[in-house]
Amino acid sequence: MSKIKVGVVGTGFIGPAHIEALRRLPNVEVVALCEVNIELATAKAAQLGIERPCTFDQLLAMEDIACVHICTPNFLHYSQSKAALLAGKHVVCEKPLAKDLHEAEELVALAKETGLVNAVHFNLRYYPLVRQMKTMREKGDLGEIYSIIGSYLQDWLFYNTDYNWRLEPDKSGDSRAIADIGSHLMDIIEYITGLKTVEVMADFNTVHKTRKKPLKPVETYSGKMLQPEDYADVEINTEDTANVLLRFDNGNKGLVTVSQVSAGRKNQLKLEISGSNKTFAWNSEAPNELWLGNRDAANQVLMRDPSLAYAEARDIMTFPGGHNEGFPDTSKQLFKEVYAAVAAGKQPENPTFPTFADGYRELLICERILDSHRSQSWTKV
Amino acid sequence: MSKIKVGVVGTGFIGPAHIEALRRLPNVEVVALCEVNIELATAKAAQLGIERPCTFDQLLAMEDIACVHICTPNFLHYSQSKAALLAGKHVVCEKPLAKDLHEAEELVALAKETGLVNAVHFNLRYYPLVRQMKTMREKGDLGEIYSIIGSYLQDWLFYNTDYNWRLEPDKSGDSRAIADIGSHLMDIIEYITGLKTVEVMADFNTVHKTRKKPLKPVETYSGKMLQPEDYADVEINTEDTANVLLRFDNGNKGLVTVSQVSAGRKNQLKLEISGSNKTFAWNSEAPNELWLGNRDAANQVLMRDPSLAYAEARDIMTFPGGHNEGFPDTSKQLFKEVYAAVAAGKQPENPTFPTFADGYRELLICERILDSHRSQSWTKV
Amino acid sequence: MSKIKVGVVGTGFIGPAHIEALRRLPNVEVVALCEVNIELATAKAAQLGIERPCTFDQLLAMEDIACVHICTPNFLHYSQSKAALLAGKHVVCEKPLAKDLHEAEELVALAKETGLVNAVHFNLRYYPLVRQMKTMREKGDLGEIYSIIGSYLQDWLFYNTDYNWRLEPDKSGDSRAIADIGSHLMDIIEYITGLKTVEVMADFNTVHKTRKKPLKPVETYSGKMLQPEDYADVEINTEDTANVLLRFDNGNKGLVTVSQVSAGRKNQLKLEISGSNKTFAWNSEAPNELWLGNRDAANQVLMRDPSLAYAEARDIMTFPGGHNEGFPDTSKQLFKEVYAAVAAGKQPENPTFPTFADGYRELLICERILDSHRSQSWTKV
Amino acid sequence: MSKIKVGVVGTGFIGPAHIEALRRLPNVEVVALCEVNIELATAKAAQLGIERPCTFDQLLAMEDIACVHICTPNFLHYSQSKAALLAGKHVVCEKPLAKDLHEAEELVALAKETGLVNAVHFNLRYYPLVRQMKTMREKGDLGEIYSIIGSYLQDWLFYNTDYNWRLEPDKSGDSRAIADIGSHLMDIIEYITGLKTVEVMADFNTVHKTRKKPLKPVETYSGKMLQPEDYADVEINTEDTANVLLRFDNGNKGLVTVSQVSAGRKNQLKLEISGSNKTFAWNSEAPNELWLGNRDAANQVLMRDPSLAYAEARDIMTFPGGHNEGFPDTSKQLFKEVYAAVAAGKQPENPTFPTFADGYRELLICERILDSHRSQSWTKV
Repeated sequence: MSKIKVGVVGTGFIGPAHIEALRRLPNVEVVALCEVNIELATAKAAQLGIERPCTFDQLLAMEDIACVHICTPNFLHYSQSKAALLAGKHVVCEKPLAKDLHEAEELVALAKETGLVNAVHFNLRYYPLVRQMKTMREKGDLGEIYSIIGSYLQDWLFYNTDYNWRLEPDKSGDSRAIADIGSHLMDIIEYITGLKTVEVMADFNTVHKTRKKPLKPVETYSGKMLQPEDYADVEINTEDTANVLLRFDNGNKGLVTVSQVSAGRKNQLKLEISGSNKTFAWNSEAPNELWLGNRDAANQVLMRDPSLAYAEARDIMTFPGGHNEGFPDTSKQLFKEVYAAVAAGKQPENPTFPTFADGYRELLICERILDSHRSQSWTKV
Repeated sequence: MSKIKVGVVGTGFIGPAHIEALRRLPNVEVVALCEVNIELATAKAAQLGIERPCTFDQLLAMEDIACVHICTPNFLHYSQSKAALLAGKHVVCEKPLAKDLHEAEELVALAKETGLVNAVHFNLRYYPLVRQMKTMREKGDLGEIYSIIGSYLQDWLFYNTDYNWRLEPDKSGDSRAIADIGSHLMDIIEYITGLKTVEVMADFNTVHKTRKKPLKPVETYSGKMLQPEDYADVEINTEDTANVLLRFDNGNKGLVTVSQVSAGRKNQLKLEISGSNKTFAWNSEAPNELWLGNRDAANQVLMRDPSLAYAEARDIMTFPGGHNEGFPDTSKQLFKEVYAAVAAGKQPENPTFPTFADGYRELLICERILDSHRSQSWTKV
Repeated sequence: MSKIKVGVVGTGFIGPAHIEALRRLPNVEVVALCEVNIELATAKAAQLGIERPCTFDQLLAMEDIACVHICTPNFLHYSQSKAALLAGKHVVCEKPLAKDLHEAEELVALAKETGLVNAVHFNLRYYPLVRQMKTMREKGDLGEIYSIIGSYLQDWLFYNTDYNWRLEPDKSGDSRAIADIGSHLMDIIEYITGLKTVEVMADFNTVHKTRKKPLKPVETYSGKMLQPEDYADVEINTEDTANVLLRFDNGNKGLVTVSQVSAGRKNQLKLEISGSNKTFAWNSEAPNELWLGNRDAANQVLMRDPSLAYAEARDIMTFPGGHNEGFPDTSKQLFKEVYAAVAAGKQPENPTFPTFADGYRELLICERILDSHRSQSWTKV
Repeated sequence: MSKIKVGVVGTGFIGPAHIEALRRLPNVEVVALCEVNIELATAKAAQLGIERPCTFDQLLAMEDIACVHICTPNFLHYSQSKAALLAGKHVVCEKPLAKDLHEAEELVALAKETGLVNAVHFNLRYYPLVRQMKTMREKGDLGEIYSIIGSYLQDWLFYNTDYNWRLEPDKSGDSRAIADIGSHLMDIIEYITGLKTVEVMADFNTVHKTRKKPLKPVETYSGKMLQPEDYADVEINTEDTANVLLRFDNGNKGLVTVSQVSAGRKNQLKLEISGSNKTFAWNSEAPNELWLGNRDAANQVLMRDPSLAYAEARDIMTFPGGHNEGFPDTSKQLFKEVYAAVAAGKQPENPTFPTFADGYRELLICERILDSHRSQSWTKV
């Protein structure tokens, strides 16, 4: 029984999440772990139980590695994905796919040329009830879409003493809240509805104009547990909150709001999609329930339950109804579909998983949102 | 024991709600009921148990009537309020106060000149937890306000066969969803936060470009129970949904969305206000609970309970915690405060209740929102 | 337009609630208010806006009074109801109807003999979704009832410094939590399900074996706001919590638990009734929502909405869906049905409202529950 | 880097869940899979990606296997656990540990004698907020425990056509709902509260006196998706629902109810524990939220968030707040603690995980509950 061999690059917040999710698949083996230097790689590999610590070049040189996961800070995604593809590896890249559209375009083209499997980790699509919404929409249960309301709220950057590399444009890009979490929201909206966002009107806000940077770096989300320390004042140019009006290609409208400074909202993506038959409402912090609004009948709450879902959604459920599945399970399900393609040796014609093309699409939307904020005007996507 | 005598004008959806609420006050007596003709007035007065059916002119001529409630369709509010003030009556007017700013300005000035009690029925302010939020904000529990998210969603105009006078601009004005429910939302936002909305950017949408008008009129909300009938096609020019970006006088931002075509949302106003200390979240369909978000402690759910609220909020609670109070109670509490002023014979210097000036303010905001939509640009309030 | 004239006896927590509810009815007028002495009656009548303060004897002597509401402490219900019936008055009595079964039996017989309208204020039946459940059950939507789970939890007696006349058996009876709130729960269970409780097995617990009695009396529920004072130690013999197993006449089973010492539960009655078609779940603290559980379809949440309810339930709704109705509205709806009977001059053959016979039934069940606790054995009802 | 080698026995519902959870641990490797015959073992091992298919005897003979997981039907737990211990393997056994107290006692003694690691898969203890409740109780946040209300409701045996080996006493034991899910509930109650259940009073009910047995067997939970087929009528002697009154060693009381026929409740364990400081309420279907009830302050909702939890609970959280963790994560966390012991080579003195002694305890309580039902009387534990 030979398993597909995988290497993971980066051990911040999300790298270990990839590793743990990959291990749940019966046909995949994480054999290599890459960090910025071999010492760190060795220490992390020991801790995470991975055989081969390595540098990025060493990783690409390993012939038995079929697929590489890019889990590094944003500014490295482009160069590492490109190198991996050129080395003949299938690639799963964290979002954002690149720092600008040109890079992303290049990656999409290169991936297409090579025929290699390419995926972006838009894992929120893999909440089973997200796919259930998409499938219900496809089957006509939602009807014509009238209105979309989305929000993604966090509080991990609530205080001006909260600090992270994501606050630094050279590492993370010129947009923060939109690029970081707005991208998930915009991806999931288009994924579920099948609509294209055609025009945006944005207004950003930086609540903390300066923040206090700690003298040593801390991992994403873990800053909350920092003890008070010495800090340096840093001017902040990226948005803490952003509000965006949306227009879709069916002529109807929506809006989204994102924030990283909303006390008590830990990591809450909410969606409300109103159609001519029903309304869908879903909240990522209670992902096992889907609210279905009706005009002429009782509203409904559909639980994540294989026996109650469409086959397309059932495919990404492991446990029976009432056995709560969550965030860790989304990556497992995404990788399950990606590795079916890896096993087949090439990108499918119509992938069920998010691809580099989807990564490009999200970059495009986020860039247009940023343009709109800067120009203070409606901007076409 | 002499009670304050009151006349009510109009017997659609909201007139009887005023009457029932007024009757709960120990010091008030609804003695007169006015309709468009004396026959209808007589029939309705018998049904509602009111002694004196009358026309509007007859009502104003009754010397013992201290206060008049204007509960007619929107286009009559201005002329009837003006006539009532000129007749020396205290006036409680339904919202909107008038059809345009000039009319509203005139009413504000006239009311001021007469010194008579003037109130607008922004009853949602009288959900006790709304006042609790206002009081918490005043006492500093919320901190600096970072972001505001509001929505007001209904489904009573969901189908193109749903019809009502509110769909006709000559009776209801050029804006519908914003004027009708957006006004409540904007009022409650400024009421709770103490902020002024200084700039708006709006985008409206009319989902049903034509609707089917029934051949006989139906009362607000009751159309849902209509039997299928003959209808006429009518072109619709007012908005079914509206999305608005907001900027406030503290430099921070927000957004609101309103809809009358969201299946399953019967009459749901939701607010989420994030500050530098806490987040408030409240939903009018579950009005006895206030969610309080915290960054460094468990979130909280404050129930409407006199023993847990600030005195200012406790003043408008009648029952102990766990004894759910709702929509009918808001009008009672509003009128309780209005009639304390009526008993005193004049408008207080700092009324606790919403006044004609507040009615003007909401018209102003709604007009600017409509201007913004029409001009497709940021518009100052 | 002549209205039905009513007198109310007692001005504690519930008397004013009756008065306010009665005033909302177009055909009823509260003209007399009775207290233990004329001075108190006069003060309260002035405060509550009622014309005629009086003693109980004076009240019964008023010929134009058609109906009397008994809102006094429990130990007076029997004698006052009896006297009122003998004086030819219709009677609405607070629960419990009497202090023992003999008294209650006598009242039932007397009421029957007189033909006068007799009602007990089991107002919880008048939450519209409670009647919706009853109607759904009658129409077969629930199916055969498999299992019933009920709870009624409060926290107003949580501390040993919480004190009230209900803690004193000579004023309130030998059972407290069961008699006070368990009776509502048992009534509503039989009302909704149509089942008879045939056997009970109870276990009571007194958490605070002694309590600190304040030197001056305080009204129900208002003790929470007491300042610290001088107290006397009093031994407590009635239950703070009670657990009861139930058997029903269809052969199936259930259980209930009641508590007056559950921190955070202000006044929460919850019911979960499982049938062969559906499960019902309802919570009095969020009374506008009914959860309907399904095995093979999404669960449902039915909002209180006239357009979504059966006619029987719609009859006791005033406002459209989304306009939260609550505790104060239950009494209004109950009295609306009672006063239709009063207007007709006699008790209907099949009253829709709870009668003295229902009051007897609840006393019987509560007495058998107390017997079971004392005998520590299954006890037949 | 050498990993601990593990063998898993049984591939029904729970075996694969063990395997997937084990794989998430960096220091553990599932190398062997055992089924009733080598053909089935081979097929399943291929499907699950495990190297060595084997029979039970072959498994025990593998010297490099350190630990064995018993995931077979209940009637095999005793003999297989015993054989594994005798073969010098550490053992993780599914619940129930055995079919009667004698067997369980023997296993506890044997485990103690060998010093080998022994654990029972009471995974519900590993919901992080369950441990948070336990820790809060230990630190005094709950106070003296006044009352406990528990329920565990499912609907997978709702219809009389639902069938499973758990319905057959020779495979599953004389109690079903109590043994199967009541055991989890009783375990978690004693785990959180630290109380001992000292007396029980039970009443069982079999709603479906006969069920229709399908001609071929189906796996737990998967029966819901069966097509209509040929069935045989089978008499059912085990309980569909059970109600139990409880008395605890602190003198206070509680009750639990379990059901496998409650439509819409997929797998819902609910707990409400009232103490002299606070009330805890928790629901396994929304396991990332803990409700904390207060008398004199707002109630609280504590999210599963490492930055908000006690260290003891934080230890079993992987992801930041707002990243929903669920049922699959509980087994991972349990095994993480078990394999720390396996790595150390012996059972710790004070294990944090549930042991054979805990398995014995649950069997004892469930047996006493069954005794009480049979004798219709209060029964000491």
